[in-house]
Amino acid sequence: MGRFIKRISKTSGLVPGELVHVGERKIDKVKISVLDYDDKNFQEKETTNIEEIFPFKDTPTVSWININGLHELEIIEKIGNNFDMHPLTLEDIVNTSQRPKYEDFDKYIFVVLKMLMFDEGKKAIISEQVSLIFGSNFVISFQEREGDVFDPIRERIRNAKGRIRRMGADYLAYSLLDAVVDNYFSILEKLGDKIEGLEEELVTNPMPQTLQAIHNLKRDTIFLRKAVWPLREVASSLERGESKLIKKSTSIFLRDLYDHTIQAIDTIETFRDMVSGILDIYMSSVSNRMNEIMKVLTIFAAIFIPLTFMAGIYGMNFEFMPELKWKYGYFVLLGLMAVVGFGLLFHFRRKKWI
Amino acid sequence: MGRFIKRISKTSGLVPGELVHVGERKIDKVKISVLDYDDKNFQEKETTNIEEIFPFKDTPTVSWININGLHELEIIEKIGNNFDMHPLTLEDIVNTSQRPKYEDFDKYIFVVLKMLMFDEGKKAIISEQVSLIFGSNFVISFQEREGDVFDPIRERIRNAKGRIRRMGADYLAYSLLDAVVDNYFSILEKLGDKIEGLEEELVTNPMPQTLQAIHNLKRDTIFLRKAVWPLREVASSLERGESKLIKKSTSIFLRDLYDHTIQAIDTIETFRDMVSGILDIYMSSVSNRMNEIMKVLTIFAAIFIPLTFMAGIYGMNFEFMPELKWKYGYFVLLGLMAVVGFGLLFHFRRKKWI
Amino acid sequence: MGRFIKRISKTSGLVPGELVHVGERKIDKVKISVLDYDDKNFQEKETTNIEEIFPFKDTPTVSWININGLHELEIIEKIGNNFDMHPLTLEDIVNTSQRPKYEDFDKYIFVVLKMLMFDEGKKAIISEQVSLIFGSNFVISFQEREGDVFDPIRERIRNAKGRIRRMGADYLAYSLLDAVVDNYFSILEKLGDKIEGLEEELVTNPMPQTLQAIHNLKRDTIFLRKAVWPLREVASSLERGESKLIKKSTSIFLRDLYDHTIQAIDTIETFRDMVSGILDIYMSSVSNRMNEIMKVLTIFAAIFIPLTFMAGIYGMNFEFMPELKWKYGYFVLLGLMAVVGFGLLFHFRRKKWI
Amino acid sequence: MGRFIKRISKTSGLVPGELVHVGERKIDKVKISVLDYDDKNFQEKETTNIEEIFPFKDTPTVSWININGLHELEIIEKIGNNFDMHPLTLEDIVNTSQRPKYEDFDKYIFVVLKMLMFDEGKKAIISEQVSLIFGSNFVISFQEREGDVFDPIRERIRNAKGRIRRMGADYLAYSLLDAVVDNYFSILEKLGDKIEGLEEELVTNPMPQTLQAIHNLKRDTIFLRKAVWPLREVASSLERGESKLIKKSTSIFLRDLYDHTIQAIDTIETFRDMVSGILDIYMSSVSNRMNEIMKVLTIFAAIFIPLTFMAGIYGMNFEFMPELKWKYGYFVLLGLMAVVGFGLLFHFRRKKWI
Amino acid sequence: MGRFIKRISKTSGLVPGELVHVGERKIDKVKISVLDYDDKNFQEKETTNIEEIFPFKDTPTVSWININGLHELEIIEKIGNNFDMHPLTLEDIVNTSQRPKYEDFDKYIFVVLKMLMFDEGKKAIISEQVSLIFGSNFVISFQEREGDVFDPIRERIRNAKGRIRRMGADYLAYSLLDAVVDNYFSILEKLGDKIEGLEEELVTNPMPQTLQAIHNLKRDTIFLRKAVWPLREVASSLERGESKLIKKSTSIFLRDLYDHTIQAIDTIETFRDMVSGILDIYMSSVSNRMNEIMKVLTIFAAIFIPLTFMAGIYGMNFEFMPELKWKYGYFVLLGLMAVVGFGLLFHFRRKKWI
Repeated sequence: MGRFIKRISKTSGLVPGELVHVGERKIDKVKISVLDYDDKNFQEKETTNIEEIFPFKDTPTVSWININGLHELEIIEKIGNNFDMHPLTLEDIVNTSQRPKYEDFDKYIFVVLKMLMFDEGKKAIISEQVSLIFGSNFVISFQEREGDVFDPIRERIRNAKGRIRRMGADYLAYSLLDAVVDNYFSILEKLGDKIEGLEEELVTNPMPQTLQAIHNLKRDTIFLRKAVWPLREVASSLERGESKLIKKSTSIFLRDLYDHTIQAIDTIETFRDMVSGILDIYMSSVSNRMNEIMKVLTIFAAIFIPLTFMAGIYGMNFEFMPELKWKYGYFVLLGLMAVVGFGLLFHFRRKKWI
Repeated sequence: MGRFIKRISKTSGLVPGELVHVGERKIDKVKISVLDYDDKNFQEKETTNIEEIFPFKDTPTVSWININGLHELEIIEKIGNNFDMHPLTLEDIVNTSQRPKYEDFDKYIFVVLKMLMFDEGKKAIISEQVSLIFGSNFVISFQEREGDVFDPIRERIRNAKGRIRRMGADYLAYSLLDAVVDNYFSILEKLGDKIEGLEEELVTNPMPQTLQAIHNLKRDTIFLRKAVWPLREVASSLERGESKLIKKSTSIFLRDLYDHTIQAIDTIETFRDMVSGILDIYMSSVSNRMNEIMKVLTIFAAIFIPLTFMAGIYGMNFEFMPELKWKYGYFVLLGLMAVVGFGLLFHFRRKKWI
Repeated sequence: MGRFIKRISKTSGLVPGELVHVGERKIDKVKISVLDYDDKNFQEKETTNIEEIFPFKDTPTVSWININGLHELEIIEKIGNNFDMHPLTLEDIVNTSQRPKYEDFDKYIFVVLKMLMFDEGKKAIISEQVSLIFGSNFVISFQEREGDVFDPIRERIRNAKGRIRRMGADYLAYSLLDAVVDNYFSILEKLGDKIEGLEEELVTNPMPQTLQAIHNLKRDTIFLRKAVWPLREVASSLERGESKLIKKSTSIFLRDLYDHTIQAIDTIETFRDMVSGILDIYMSSVSNRMNEIMKVLTIFAAIFIPLTFMAGIYGMNFEFMPELKWKYGYFVLLGLMAVVGFGLLFHFRRKKWI
Repeated sequence: MGRFIKRISKTSGLVPGELVHVGERKIDKVKISVLDYDDKNFQEKETTNIEEIFPFKDTPTVSWININGLHELEIIEKIGNNFDMHPLTLEDIVNTSQRPKYEDFDKYIFVVLKMLMFDEGKKAIISEQVSLIFGSNFVISFQEREGDVFDPIRERIRNAKGRIRRMGADYLAYSLLDAVVDNYFSILEKLGDKIEGLEEELVTNPMPQTLQAIHNLKRDTIFLRKAVWPLREVASSLERGESKLIKKSTSIFLRDLYDHTIQAIDTIETFRDMVSGILDIYMSSVSNRMNEIMKVLTIFAAIFIPLTFMAGIYGMNFEFMPELKWKYGYFVLLGLMAVVGFGLLFHFRRKKWI
Repeated sequence: MGRFIKRISKTSGLVPGELVHVGERKIDKVKISVLDYDDKNFQEKETTNIEEIFPFKDTPTVSWININGLHELEIIEKIGNNFDMHPLTLEDIVNTSQRPKYEDFDKYIFVVLKMLMFDEGKKAIISEQVSLIFGSNFVISFQEREGDVFDPIRERIRNAKGRIRRMGADYLAYSLLDAVVDNYFSILEKLGDKIEGLEEELVTNPMPQTLQAIHNLKRDTIFLRKAVWPLREVASSLERGESKLIKKSTSIFLRDLYDHTIQAIDTIETFRDMVSGILDIYMSSVSNRMNEIMKVLTIFAAIFIPLTFMAGIYGMNFEFMPELKWKYGYFVLLGLMAVVGFGLLFHFRRKKWI
């Protein structure tokens, strides 16, 4: 459940725009890296001192500043002051319980979204908040911890592979968003595989544990929905490209981003339908098995209870019971019992119970 | 249920705009307090005589008048007359069963919303109606009882902390709304904790009482939905900022308020999904347990009923039953019974019932 | 069910606009009353002769003509001709299976809505169709029977209480609509009380009869939904006030009417959610009780069937059964039975079945 | 199921606009009838030769051409050529699996809708496709078979009853649509009666057959929904009256048609809710009855199994069983059995099982 | 499940627009065919060398280039370069997990949709991605494998049947889309037949296997929904015809395409409703059968357990049991047993259990 709601109430009663880090501290020391490039030049720097990155701001080249770790509020504040950010933007960056959102502050565009990972330990999908701020010649990305899905983009910038070095900050921002959304599909695949496995188990051998697995899947789809749905609006806002910070040539890529987002949402909805279908089938098959169990009980009881009664009759100690004296009484009774027993057996077979 | 619908029918058949206090009387004596401030000046006053606060109206400074207790209609009427309020506004203030709403009366904006609390005694979420009226240089807040979430704001005004003393009445109104909405998240967290607890109980040891807990959670989410959903429209109306009473600089904060409202609604919807998922799982696990019980019964019955029948046979008193005379008849039968018993046991084990 | 669909098919195959009274005849003789007033003058008249009311039409004062009983089509037609109504309007008035609706015929506005009552006999909510027609200086209201929620308005007109005598026909029409909608809340309260009662019963002592009560509640909410939902559109059309027959000063009251309608719909939706939640809980608690019953059966059967089998063994009549000869055989067996019995008892207690 | 999807795939792979009759052939010989009229003149003709009706096209009077039977494609084609219809219109007319739709081809308006009937034989609702084409002075109606709901309209035209002879082709088209929609209500009534019957059965004596009846009702509502929902859009398109073929005076009648359509849809939705409510109640009452059955079983088993065990004890043949020798042993045991039996009986009564 | 999500994550971390074939390789060698035609001329060519088709690009005739097989990325790239396609278009073509979509690139329109087939082997509906690109005088279609629904169109072009040779590339594109959508109906029919079969089975003889069949149907409808729903938007975009590449005369055909798409979606929704209805009925009938089984068990147990107890009484070995000495004791007891047995039988019959 900690996945679904974080200790956001910590911020209650504070001045709006006052910085409070909401969320777990997932890294020891804040790490800052800069990639500064244009078509011809490229420079890379890693540091822990925020002051060193400010000079990049005034160069005409595109600067991608990545910050890993959100708990040192002083650093966030310095960036905020240096890049002229609104206090509410800074508040949103450090509050990791944000809903994915898009805000246009004229001088910069602010995008919040969720990077998803599959935590092999907890066997559950977890999320990390990524905030992007981009202006005319810079992109600043904020992450909660180290490790992300941006390495291929770094490589492309370093090696001038593809069109990225020839494009502006808006294309870089798009690339980062695209990398996050593309990564959703690998999560969706994992979920899809689980659903597939469950469906087979359902058919071959449904177990009480299956129920727990279904419940976990349901929670995962709810979690995904919450993380991905609002992105639709974000992508749509970006695609409409009403900001002058987004060039026309990037717009077509943003449309593609929007399409991918819709596709991810579509798949999540399909998964929801499938999981709820699986639960229905599970419940029905539990009832079916109950019927099977009851049939076994009923057949045993219905056959042997009357027979036992018959045996009970002749186990009575009345002095005058003529049958007991008959020579073949016992065998006649055994025969009668066989008739009754097989008659009932035949009856149940005709009812298709056996 | 009293939580869901109040004795609103009391107002039926009255002149529209006629004041009737709908709701419980939650305070003995109406308490009035004023905070009057601008960038440089600050004045605070507490009183029970409404006349004393009217002079504040004409000062250019921002005046925040807070009224605790709605049952003294005379006071409400006097405020209404003095601040030129529409009769329907006054009617809405004292009718505490209002739906959250936003109304623009040109000279003032009227906002109704619900402040939520967790009542530790009743173990349920309860709500209190807060009405806000703000004009160019005043904010009047009406509450049903003492005790609210506004103390941090009072502190900030007194200590000139943050930007509040430099901003106008619209920013003060925003701050109050923001405090109420921020408080929702602490309620949501409590609910989230309960859901989490229930989910674990569901897995480790589901009980009939769990059902009652699920039902209570469901009611709480329904209650929250009813209180928070309409706020979406309110926040959206405020954010669009079509009134000239709302300055552009406040608008950006109202957008943040809107985002928070959406986030609260999102979380409530997620909770709804989770609670309904929990109920499904609960029902399935009840059926699973039924299967377990039935299996135990069936195994006992299916094994011992035939054996008892066999014993019954040789308990009969027929004069001519050859087996009874055999020396080892008894032991042969015991052996046969063991074969039958273990045979059935083996059969059920192969069926994975044991 | 007769509540949900009336014999509307009677009208099939008729000329559109041809009058046919659809619905039960709920009054013997049509009763007509007129209240004619302005700021200074007031006149009241009750009659059964429709001709007597036509003179009121041409006075500049506001005339409220109320007709109780719709089965005398001749009267309806005369009013229609005299007030220049469209044939379809007349058809709609006498067809009491109308959906609430708003129609603007330039010269007059036509509103149909449902007045709700709780029929103590049938223990069910019933509805009566009210049609309102208002022009620049008249309001005509059509009702199916005597007895309505308009008496307080009549009193206010007679006693010149409130602003009603100073306002026009549009305000009178609003007042009538407001009275009908306000009355919804008393119905909703009754329903709310029933739901509350049911919820407590559910917890303390669920019974098969509870199911019938849940079903009745569900039907009541469906019935309410059908009667009240379309009113949203009606109130919204009135509020937008595009007709010149609605003055600006009345518009603000119509906004209030709209708010009340939304609030009623909101409450109905909440009730729907609650009733469906109650049904879920009921079904789960039936399953829980089944588990309880099965546990009792299983415990009795699982303990005594093996013991009976043991007794059966020593009830056999084999000639050679060494145990029967032992002096303490009987007591040893009794002891063994106690061990088995208490062992099973202990086993079930450890399983938390007892 | 044949009701829900027809052999439409027959048309796959054909030239768009190529005519193929999709649906059953429901009449032997195509029958054509014409009613030609204006205010003063009236002429009626029945024929099987399509050429004879073409002269009516050029008269200024309104001509209503009705074609019963769609399988003679030659006739349809001739009409198409003579009245200048688009090939796609003709394709739609003969493909009886059309969804209700409205198309404006400037020179004519094309409307497809479903006429509903209750087939007493199959005990199910069936539908027949009706296509209407109307231009400035003609209406052509296509039906699959003989027998329709238009006879009252024919009578009104013949007898010059009502306003129909004074109005144009658009009013005639409206009248036909209105007759079809009015007829829906008689179908809805039949369905309503069935639901009412089922609800009573549910309360007094639920049976396994009830389930089949519920399923049939559900299918009927699904079928109705599919046939009637799209009509909403059709009626709304007609009402907006953007075509110059629709006169303003007819527009008000089309608004009424729209209202009726919405009312029919509303009722269908209410029925859906009710049927799904009935199913829920049915399932709960099946579970309730299961509980009753289990209680009976458990009471019998729990009382007599221990008693039988006690009798079994004293049926054993141990040589040394002191109780057997006691004079009153038998009666003491009988007494003990009575105590145990009534004790259990009392226990179950206290549990409210009896 | 592989049906629902493909290995799309393969593309993660690549340059946007970089080509990667996502999906199974369903054909050995890419096959290219061209049909080049206008009103008077016609030319057809089949090749595996992509260069040979480029000359067709510059002719004024309409050229339909069909490519079967997407795994040879070089070919796709060459076409892309030659026809001036955007890199994202190429990426979408080879990524067969696309959602149906419409994109207008000014110089060409790009449409992705799903061709559905029923795989007789897997007994499931499968899909193949079809991408269409059309400009002023060319249409390029990309398919994953050989075998499609376009043969009738090829025939019409070859034989100059219908209007296709007289129309432009937009009409050809429409024809291809229409063929795909028409084919949906044959799939829907197959599904409809299955549903019909299942409904009958449900009534006559419900089996555990029925559950698997219901589950498969549910998955099929989910799969269809995912494939067909997004087409609604595609068809609507095409119909609005905002591109100058679509002529007005084709627009009317595209409206028809839109209608067919809606009809397919409607039918899918109806199927969804029906399948979910079938599941409900199945679950209820499983419960009903459980009741039947329980009744059999209860009747047997309730009748014979008391009788066995009575026999047990007189099987006891007490020395003093007066009844045992009575001459008619045995027959009296038999009579008593008959009374008890038939009494219970009569009781259960009165309860309608038998």
